[in-house]
Amino acid sequence: MQEIRLIDIKEEILTDNKKSADELRSVLKQKKVFLINLMSSPGSGKTSLILKTVAQMQDRFRIGVLEADIDSMVDAEKIASAGIPSVQLRTGGFCHLDAAMVQKGLEAFDLSSLDVIIIENVGNLVCPAEFDTGAILNAMILSIPEGDDKPLKYPLMFTISNVLLINKTDYLPLSDFNVKACRERARALNPHIAIFETSSKTGDGISTWTAWLTEEIHKSGFYEKQSIKQP
Amino acid sequence: MQEIRLIDIKEEILTDNKKSADELRSVLKQKKVFLINLMSSPGSGKTSLILKTVAQMQDRFRIGVLEADIDSMVDAEKIASAGIPSVQLRTGGFCHLDAAMVQKGLEAFDLSSLDVIIIENVGNLVCPAEFDTGAILNAMILSIPEGDDKPLKYPLMFTISNVLLINKTDYLPLSDFNVKACRERARALNPHIAIFETSSKTGDGISTWTAWLTEEIHKSGFYEKQSIKQP
Repeated sequence: MQEIRLIDIKEEILTDNKKSADELRSVLKQKKVFLINLMSSPGSGKTSLILKTVAQMQDRFRIGVLEADIDSMVDAEKIASAGIPSVQLRTGGFCHLDAAMVQKGLEAFDLSSLDVIIIENVGNLVCPAEFDTGAILNAMILSIPEGDDKPLKYPLMFTISNVLLINKTDYLPLSDFNVKACRERARALNPHIAIFETSSKTGDGISTWTAWLTEEIHKSGFYEKQSIKQP
Repeated sequence: MQEIRLIDIKEEILTDNKKSADELRSVLKQKKVFLINLMSSPGSGKTSLILKTVAQMQDRFRIGVLEADIDSMVDAEKIASAGIPSVQLRTGGFCHLDAAMVQKGLEAFDLSSLDVIIIENVGNLVCPAEFDTGAILNAMILSIPEGDDKPLKYPLMFTISNVLLINKTDYLPLSDFNVKACRERARALNPHIAIFETSSKTGDGISTWTAWLTEEIHKSGFYEKQSIKQP
């Protein structure tokens, strides 16, 4: 039997990506732009949540949105219709964003005119968790219809996220989703994860989430642009 | 409404990959190594077909195999057990190989001691078709149990392949697979595609395929190494 030489290309690719992500974070720190990477499965409500979040925070921060979509521009159009500066990355079937793709997207913004950029990552609970995008904060959504077992099935996403939004709480009366069990499963993977229950439909929990996010942005020191709007 | 800026990252990535693939092909031409990229769905018989192909061709060519596997080394072990030089690329969930990954794999071979390298790409009829690996020849397998409609559903793979192996013909008596319809559908997409019917189990068609492949390698001029075995 011949010896098999084993090459771990995934590790090499992820190492290269981490380096690009760290470089991007340095640039963003210098330019005082707070980058948020929002991840979830398809249909868990990322776009609606972004719209609600921007609506509540735009009196304090100038916010842009970087949309990743496989082919359509539906989400980007919703964002742009709300008057939010947006860039659409057409991924053409790619299952995640990496730091180099995010950098290309950010080049299309005028970073000096923005305080916060939210990435709406590709709808996928698996691959986006593997790739550091260069964001300061990883946020994820799990929606009630998806089920409370997802931390068991997709542990990496819960492990690398700074905050979990348990979204579409308006479905709770129709669902056997166990919020307490879901919280415990997420915290078992990631004791430091912040967790909020939200509904873009009813507005439930949105202000609690945006208050926390505002505090995170303040703590980062990124918001201290001369041009920032004052409350 | 804000203007949406659109960035086609897929096109940029594919353009970068094409450049790397062309560079790799130049190196392979100089080193006289004929690189074959074998693609198919999971379970269509790539590993068995490689074993049969090498068995029939190894009196003329020194052949190595570059295995891409998401996590296991099962296929690489089968290849190595047959005494074939092999390198295992552990993709860790990636859905395709690109030229940079193939180059990393080829660096682990002694190219001066090989005439032909067969890449067993990730089992996937979609993504691998998008990425030029730097191979001289793209080969694909469609197995009888997969159905004769696959050219309609996955046209790109049939379009970019130089040769189609309709494999597992031993299943034909149990199947409603229409070989003539499949051939017509493949040729409608790609009039120049060579098509062979094969079965690794019965050996059916293998020598026709390897005779054709031998001729392709001869035509390329890549085989003219001083060290090549003569028939």
